[in-house]
Amino acid sequence: MVHRPGTSLHLLADLAATRHLADPQAIAAVLTAAAQAARAQLVGLHVHPFGEGQGVTGVAMLAESHISIHTWPETGQAAVDLFVCGEDADAEAGLAVLVEAFGATVTWRQRVARLREASVQPL
Amino acid sequence: MVHRPGTSLHLLADLAATRHLADPQAIAAVLTAAAQAARAQLVGLHVHPFGEGQGVTGVAMLAESHISIHTWPETGQAAVDLFVCGEDADAEAGLAVLVEAFGATVTWRQRVARLREASVQPL
Repeated sequence: MVHRPGTSLHLLADLAATRHLADPQAIAAVLTAAAQAARAQLVGLHVHPFGEGQGVTGVAMLAESHISIHTWPETGQAAVDLFVCGEDADAEAGLAVLVEAFGATVTWRQRVARLREASVQPL
Repeated sequence: MVHRPGTSLHLLADLAATRHLADPQAIAAVLTAAAQAARAQLVGLHVHPFGEGQGVTGVAMLAESHISIHTWPETGQAAVDLFVCGEDADAEAGLAVLVEAFGATVTWRQRVARLREASVQPL
């Protein structure tokens, strides 16, 4: 894994979205594009549709961690998270791809530094 | 999807762990047990080992959202998140299973309410 503790960012966002929320093929393509934009290496892509016209759960497994999405077409919502490690990864660029692709606005977001313990060097 | 907006909890935790961090079979079993403890329905289970003795990325896709884990055997760390929806789901019970199975202590944790917009009812 190319993870480096101390460089881990977990970006969480809730979206109000206007398209693709019930479309597993589109969601797979968007996750792939988001991983690329985040400069992350895709090691697995899994999309689970809950039925015709219903929500979708999708996960892009990355060498740098993961991107996940859960959608609720009935309320026009999606919850995403982008967990990346390494100075080169760009979670914000990945989120921008998701926002654009879903015709979305971000209703809430939070940047969370993960694995902070490892970034503390003993004196 | 059995998600109900307004009941979504995203529980994030970093662990200092003592076992199983490089064992994809054990991690698959632990994720399954954590989903069960969280009273969540597993709809997909994906585990990616990064090589002999190296870290593992695992994702349990749930009807209620997901559980993910990323491990760093070299530093004895794991980063987990448990995203569940619905009054019946119990993310804390899922986390307890992860902590016990990995012989871990929680070095950091955060409970994040997701999709809060939908919980606001118009007057």
